[in-house]
Amino acid sequence: MPDTDTAKKLQQKPATDIADAVSYRIGIIGGGQLAKMTAMAALQLGCDVVVLERKKVSPAATLATHSLIGDWDLPEELLKLAAHVDIVTLENEFVNAESLKVLTDHGYTLFPSAGTMALIQDKYLQKQTYSGAGIGVTEFRAVSSPDDIESAGKAFGWPMILKKRRNSYDGKGNYTVSSAADIEPAWKQLDGAVNELYIEAYCPFTMELAVIITLSRNGEMVTYPVVETIQKDHICHVVKAPAAIDKEVADLAAETARRAIIEIDATGSFGVEMFLTQDNKIILNEIAPRVHNSGHYTIEACVCSQFENHVRAILGWPLGSTQMVRPAAVMVNLLGTDLGPGYPVGIDRALVVPGAHVHIYGKTKSGKGRKMGHVTAVSDTLETAYAAARQAAEYITFGNKP
Amino acid sequence: MPDTDTAKKLQQKPATDIADAVSYRIGIIGGGQLAKMTAMAALQLGCDVVVLERKKVSPAATLATHSLIGDWDLPEELLKLAAHVDIVTLENEFVNAESLKVLTDHGYTLFPSAGTMALIQDKYLQKQTYSGAGIGVTEFRAVSSPDDIESAGKAFGWPMILKKRRNSYDGKGNYTVSSAADIEPAWKQLDGAVNELYIEAYCPFTMELAVIITLSRNGEMVTYPVVETIQKDHICHVVKAPAAIDKEVADLAAETARRAIIEIDATGSFGVEMFLTQDNKIILNEIAPRVHNSGHYTIEACVCSQFENHVRAILGWPLGSTQMVRPAAVMVNLLGTDLGPGYPVGIDRALVVPGAHVHIYGKTKSGKGRKMGHVTAVSDTLETAYAAARQAAEYITFGNKP
Repeated sequence: MPDTDTAKKLQQKPATDIADAVSYRIGIIGGGQLAKMTAMAALQLGCDVVVLERKKVSPAATLATHSLIGDWDLPEELLKLAAHVDIVTLENEFVNAESLKVLTDHGYTLFPSAGTMALIQDKYLQKQTYSGAGIGVTEFRAVSSPDDIESAGKAFGWPMILKKRRNSYDGKGNYTVSSAADIEPAWKQLDGAVNELYIEAYCPFTMELAVIITLSRNGEMVTYPVVETIQKDHICHVVKAPAAIDKEVADLAAETARRAIIEIDATGSFGVEMFLTQDNKIILNEIAPRVHNSGHYTIEACVCSQFENHVRAILGWPLGSTQMVRPAAVMVNLLGTDLGPGYPVGIDRALVVPGAHVHIYGKTKSGKGRKMGHVTAVSDTLETAYAAARQAAEYITFGNKP
Repeated sequence: MPDTDTAKKLQQKPATDIADAVSYRIGIIGGGQLAKMTAMAALQLGCDVVVLERKKVSPAATLATHSLIGDWDLPEELLKLAAHVDIVTLENEFVNAESLKVLTDHGYTLFPSAGTMALIQDKYLQKQTYSGAGIGVTEFRAVSSPDDIESAGKAFGWPMILKKRRNSYDGKGNYTVSSAADIEPAWKQLDGAVNELYIEAYCPFTMELAVIITLSRNGEMVTYPVVETIQKDHICHVVKAPAAIDKEVADLAAETARRAIIEIDATGSFGVEMFLTQDNKIILNEIAPRVHNSGHYTIEACVCSQFENHVRAILGWPLGSTQMVRPAAVMVNLLGTDLGPGYPVGIDRALVVPGAHVHIYGKTKSGKGRKMGHVTAVSDTLETAYAAARQAAEYITFGNKP
């Protein structure tokens, strides 16, 4: 494993050791799979990467030049990272926005900005912003008591989704309230006494859509194809690119996503999640202020991936083409099933499937629903791509090293 | 930079720290760009990489889990590497084959084998092997004095190429002997009193061809498209994929390459260089026992790159498709011009060129003819791909950090 005893190591080996050859040194807050894939794109372009992670072992630490271990919510840890790099970015949306602001206050370069992150981190504020800009969202309101939920039920109708305003992902922090009987358990599970909550009307959708937008610090913007995302238990399972929808609907979704990105002044690659309703309306769900699971397919399927474009965007380099190189691509997530070791089993079987590209993140521990890797298959039709990706994905499990 | 004070570091952090999550840990002898690109493919598949390099700073050290610093010709350094990995491979053909043999003697797994390397390292022996197998090569003979060269000149006709049997690459170790007057300076420059030399008849070719073959330890074999390589001063400048030749010629070249690979019992991805003569004969030039510059285009242009297939081959995993994803690809090397710092300048301009994929290796020092990076452009025709790759490559230079 690379440098883990961080501050000490960095003092021993000043950043200048290879800085002569590195076009930019990028600091990434977080060392998960999104950081790993971003780092791969950065390394190809002659950049290198320093990662700040809480844990000693992380997917991106393996290929980072330095790996700093620290709590990314602490301004001093963020400043330590920033001092060793040319630019800071992040791979998750949970870094305390107040702490992030310290970086800019000290003259360091951070993309996306602390302001964008503050806005995104509060899902209620996020929704207010889109709504205020005239972008279609589901009905929503802040709730501070079980009674508020009951009132909302009368106004919106059931079911509704109770959500934490902050720190929720992959369905953690969401509770579907199907009737008044669910109010009490929902309030309890999301700990309404402690957490700020809000509630949304359920959006009866015919399809969930997503699109990756990259906005450069120079103002250049590119839009990836609109894809269909298939969730299970609030976790993304499958992405089909492009979504099998009419061009007008796709154009509307892309345009909605672009408007939302501009509204929150995002810089970098962002994932925009939307609902398609029965009457072909586009309802904005939420934005992930970072490269996104719905864009992993772009590694093999697009001229320039969401990861490379994120790097280009934050460095102010021209953006690459988002065009697909083949007509169809399907990505299937490799999700853990049980708590335990994360050793990947069955890669050899998966690689037999023609056109299946296997990505294993290198997490030491698996867990139920944990994202351990993904498979992307590129083909001439969504059907053949889906069959290949699904088949390859089924062969891979995570568990004990044989 | 990751671990450089190697043995000590490895003792502090046993390989088990992330081994639970790593499908295979691959040791690569050499830390240059070939190791870097191989490591990228390995990391995606959930493997990680330990590099053995002579220098502290190398392109692959940046993304290796560990980087061992040592002389790869010393058996003890090779054993140190092998002790920390599941399998050993190499990115250059100059590692002493006798030293490599020690790895197998100690029960470690090495691909390609020490035997293959011994055969390849001696270009004279290599030629004898192909010739003995009935594969077309130019006339050649060992020479141990200037007089021998003169006799060869009478037998083969002028010009001829005088070559060191070992340790030559990129034209270093070759001397074109145009007439008897060149014998003395050629003998002197290649130091015939010290080095074993041999001489080859000049092969009047119409095109230089190359093909990457991957042979798995399981016996599975795949062949990449036959490409045209354009050399300048014995250094590969441009690769055009596929070569603009008739199918029968391409089939003959591919078949010749496969026969040669089988003859030397190669395991992994190998670059086979050939001449196409005026009468459409294929003359085998030489084999590089490793991933090869003529196969860099496979990263963007083929379903599975030469690097990923090398990893699959040595691990015994099924091989990926070598099919091109677009009709044409052209790779242009980014060569240094002067001795000095290796900071890449002009990436931002190069990335404007549509379809150009920029690879910067991250070498601290540039030098005349040194391979600092490459650009690959993928397109519908060789002409448009070449124009894009050449234009992007022209924008990039290496020098001082601005």
